[in-house]
Parts: sequence; C-alpha cells; structure tokens
Amino acid sequence: MPVNQLRRDPITGRWAIILNDEFDLNDLIIQSPKLKNKTQTCPFCENNETMTPPEIMALRNPGSFPNGPGWRVRVIPDRNPVLQIYGDINNRGVGLYDVLDGIGAHEIVIETPHHNQSVIDLSEAQIQEVLLTYQARILDLKKDERLRYIVVHKNTGEAIGETAHHCYSFVIGSPVTPKRVKDELVNSRDYFQFKERCLFCDIIRQEATMKERLVLEDGVFFAYAPFASRRPFELWIGPQKHETFFEQNTEMKMLSKMLKALFAKLFKLLNNPDYILAIHSGPNLQAGKRRGYWQTLERDFHWHIEITPRLETDTSLEVGSGFPVNPVPPEKAAELLRKTD
Amino acid sequence: MPVNQLRRDPITGRWAIILNDEFDLNDLIIQSPKLKNKTQTCPFCENNETMTPPEIMALRNPGSFPNGPGWRVRVIPDRNPVLQIYGDINNRGVGLYDVLDGIGAHEIVIETPHHNQSVIDLSEAQIQEVLLTYQARILDLKKDERLRYIVVHKNTGEAIGETAHHCYSFVIGSPVTPKRVKDELVNSRDYFQFKERCLFCDIIRQEATMKERLVLEDGVFFAYAPFASRRPFELWIGPQKHETFFEQNTEMKMLSKMLKALFAKLFKLLNNPDYILAIHSGPNLQAGKRRGYWQTLERDFHWHIEITPRLETDTSLEVGSGFPVNPVPPEKAAELLRKTD
Repeated sequence: MPVNQLRRDPITGRWAIILNDEFDLNDLIIQSPKLKNKTQTCPFCENNETMTPPEIMALRNPGSFPNGPGWRVRVIPDRNPVLQIYGDINNRGVGLYDVLDGIGAHEIVIETPHHNQSVIDLSEAQIQEVLLTYQARILDLKKDERLRYIVVHKNTGEAIGETAHHCYSFVIGSPVTPKRVKDELVNSRDYFQFKERCLFCDIIRQEATMKERLVLEDGVFFAYAPFASRRPFELWIGPQKHETFFEQNTEMKMLSKMLKALFAKLFKLLNNPDYILAIHSGPNLQAGKRRGYWQTLERDFHWHIEITPRLETDTSLEVGSGFPVNPVPPEKAAELLRKTD
Repeated sequence: MPVNQLRRDPITGRWAIILNDEFDLNDLIIQSPKLKNKTQTCPFCENNETMTPPEIMALRNPGSFPNGPGWRVRVIPDRNPVLQIYGDINNRGVGLYDVLDGIGAHEIVIETPHHNQSVIDLSEAQIQEVLLTYQARILDLKKDERLRYIVVHKNTGEAIGETAHHCYSFVIGSPVTPKRVKDELVNSRDYFQFKERCLFCDIIRQEATMKERLVLEDGVFFAYAPFASRRPFELWIGPQKHETFFEQNTEMKMLSKMLKALFAKLFKLLNNPDYILAIHSGPNLQAGKRRGYWQTLERDFHWHIEITPRLETDTSLEVGSGFPVNPVPPEKAAELLRKTD
C-alpha cells in the first residue's frame, strides 16, 4: 500500500496530509436536512422586501420598483453587520498591537426570489446574473479607498432560521486583507519575482498536461482538484489566460455554464452537499496606491474560485496541529467527478 | 455604543473581528454529553493494555510491568497513524509541487488510567506527570533528524466512541512545520531582527502593565486572553522569562498548578466545555541544522500553550472570508475569568 503523503500547496504555503487508505464515499456524506416549504417569514423571499433594509442594487424586471417584487437578484446590507460602512478606520496602535475600527461593507446577495432553491435549481442565466452582480458590487466597493480587499463568499452549511432555505451569499469589503488571501498574494508575488511567471498559470499548465486532477476545461476556464486539497472534493476554478481581477472578466456566460456543470456533478456524486464557495480576486489597488504596497501586483496574482463541499471528515488533528487530513486524494476526487454526469 | 474592532495578532499575523455587542454567556455554551460509565471496551483504561499497540513509555508504579496495569501516564502509537515512523521522507517535486512521504510520529498520551476523568478531575501531581511526559516525548522525538517540528495537542470535542470519555492527547512529530506554527516562528524572527527583543516577551510585559487581559500570574508563568482572540475565552500561557523550548522548562510543578487553576475557572464559568489545547515549542534544531535555516532561532521564539474552549459561535464568515468573528472581547473574557473562583 502506498504511504500517506504530505503535500504543500504552493499558493497558500500550507501542508496537507493526503491519506492513501481505502475510503467509503457514503461515510463522508452528511445527510442535509430537507428543504422547507416557503413561509411567510423568510425576509429574502419575493414580496417580503420590507422585512430587509433598503436594497443596494437589484436586477429587476421592467416596470418593477426598488424594494418591491419583480427582481431576479437583490443585494441588501446585512441587518447585523460585523463591519459597518460609515466612519473612519481610525488605524492606530495599542502599545505594540494594531487595531482598526470595524469599518467596511457586509452585504447579502439574494441569488433568487424563490425559497427552497439551491444552486443546482438555478438556470445558467440566473447564475450568470449572480456572477454579474458580484462583479458590480466588487467594482462599486473598490471605489472606496478605505477598503483593501473585497471577499465574495458563501457557506450553505451554517445558516439557521428561515433564510437557511434561501440561496444567498455575502460580499465583504474589508480595510485589511484576510491572512489566507494575503498568503496567496505574497506567495504569488514571490514566485513571480523568482520565476518571472505567474504561479497559477504554471499550475494550470501543469494540471492541463498531467490531467489526473483535471475536472473540466472549456478553453476559457479550468476546474481541477488542487494537489494539496485540504478537504475531499475541494475544487478550484480559474481563467486559463492570466487575469488578476475576477470583476474584469467578460466571460461570465461561460463561467456560469461551467459552475452549473460542476455543481451538477458535485450534487449528484455527494448527495446535495452543503458547500463553501469563495472568490479570490486581486486586492483593491485604490487602497493599495495610497500605501504604495501592491504596485507590482497586476502581473502576479490570478483570480480563482474555491468550492469546498462540507463532508464528514475528522478535523481533530487539523484543529490542534494545523495539518488538514484529507481522506480522498485529489486524483481520486477528480476521477470520480469526471465520471459523474 | 463602541464599534466593532479589527485586531491583528502580532504573533500569527492574523486579523480577528472583535464584536462589541452585548452577549449572553448561556448562548455560547454547548451542553456537553454526560460522561459514560467505565466499560470493558475502552482501550485506554487500565487492565485493557492488550487492546493497544505496545507502549512507547509509561510512568509506572514500582513493581508494575510494561503493557500491564500499574501505570499513571502511558504513551502508545496511534493504531491508525496518519504519519508513520519507518521509512524515508523522500522529499521530492512533482512538477512545481512539493511532496514528502507521510513519515513522522503519531502518538497518544493517555493522561490517566481511569475512565470518565476530565482534566479538572486530575490532581496537580497528575497534570505535572502528563507535562513531564510531553517533555520526555518531545526530547526523544527531537533526536530524529527527519522531524522538523513536534506538536503536542488535544481536542476533547471531536473524539468518538469509548475513548471519547477518556482523557488523552496527541504528540505529532512532523517532517514539515505546520503553516500556523511557521507563521509564528517567522513573525517572531522578523520582530527580533527589527527590535532586538522577543515579541512574546514584549507582549507579556505590555499585558502585565495593562492588566485588562491578564487572567493569572505567579511570577513564573503568565496567562492572558490574547488581544486578537479568535474565539471567546481563548487563553495563552507562557513563561515570563524568555525561553524557546517548552521541553527545557524545569518548572512543571508551577505550570501544573496554574493549568489546574485555569481549567477550574474555565470549567466553572463555561459549564465543563470541550476545549482544544496546543503546546507551541521551538522547532527541532537537529533538523534545522541540517538545513541551515533556523540558526538564529533560540533568541527569537518563546514557547507557549494555547487553550481554546469549544463554544457555540458563528463561523460562517470565518470559513468563507478568513476573518474569525469573536463575540466576547478578550478584556471581558479575562475579567469574567478573574472573577471566577
């Protein structure tokens, strides 16, 4: 039997332990609770617009009005934002510590007016509109020089209450770069300085040649199971041509088609799993210019989307030691996903 | 009302969002399952020694024999180790990726022969023997030049089966340094190069002056709620005098006394929570010398113990965006813990 492997992810610098034991897919699947019927009390449903703060933007049918029905995608501020949009960052030291006031944006993108739809119920056209909405929000928030980084993310496994059965995601605009993203930015920059090539471009070229971790490619986008996957069936999707900013990509129709196909595979193979999705785009150069920190960046970083199904895995070693333990080698995950249709 | 704060942890470089809302302690407490009675099938119980692999070491009563009853602390290899001790690391590249065979140590420290004891049931003398056992295992594993880092950790919330009700911890010897620990080592080294002082010493001096995050001090050890705590009631404990290696400390009696007092406070205030404990010591200089990487280290790093109770907190933002959101400011956590006796 081959031994387990320690694998290093070149983008984040993090090691994972990839097991080589046999695994039973059924042991990994968490039975998600059944969807609930539409209720009167979900604030994200059409006709309940008055239950939310006023909308920031919406994609609307002709003749409909803001904060009324007739929308297809709707963006609102979180009712209890952890970061708030008004005020000064007030960057300061407390002795040797760094502290900022919790300034930023904390927005909710409601991806459909209908309750009880999950991502695989959305049409390609609807997914495309959600992606275009993310782009619009990132572009708008990047006008704010206080905000260094805009994260788009989604986590279907943690929501509680009525909204747990409504399809939505978050856009967070932050005055600091999250550690995980900063690791990616710094490693990508260091690699470029060393090799004069983009790290992510090199990875895609290698994966396209090796093919064992490839899941889908369409000439524009490339989806694969990363070499040092932290979790079973983790997937990364990025443009095949070098591009720093997700919000500048003009192929959202192609991307929605690929995402639809990937989610169809994941949902069929893993029995409708909860999942986490995050878009890692380049940072806000408006904020960067002010600090003169990221000026070489545009050539360095390569945007991508990370999708991670929420499966039953033992995280006790990871939490204590820092090593994620992944029972499904990414080559096996990619093979199973390629075969699923 | 004061706004939320973004706080940066100087040792790891990670930001956390500290909320300033009111919180109800009872909302955070997870009701842990009741302890089960001793059974015939727990392999960690005294008299069941034949159910485990042969012991690596044990603290034994006079007249007792290896792999029989009569021990007070017992160390065994994990039956299903994610890292195995025999073989070559086989450090190699796969194209641009780095990979090593899963070589290392994966040991279990059984902290008591008795079922159904949690850490607060152990006497100071017993805790001291557990700490001395950790030291012995670290010293022994550091003789192995293949191993770069030895992690001691414990996670009472994830165990399943019979052993869930037995008190034990892990010692992992790894050929690579976990990302989280490496961040600490690199930040500590960079700080020393900039300031010519130890970062952790500076933190302890500052916390000893400010006092608002101090929980306990006894002239030798110092326990406090870190400024950018990721989780409510996170605690760090370290020696007040600069010291790089946990395993070289000769004050384990004092440390066991402080840990006993801290756990008594945590268990009383938070109703017997599950918790994570990790010891961060300096890396293995034997492995370091071979690679010439850590030679300035002894002055840079300062060992410490991290204890984090497992409470009900919303991690959805953290998982997607990378920002932990902590509803209990560490000043408040420290105040509540100081008042608990």
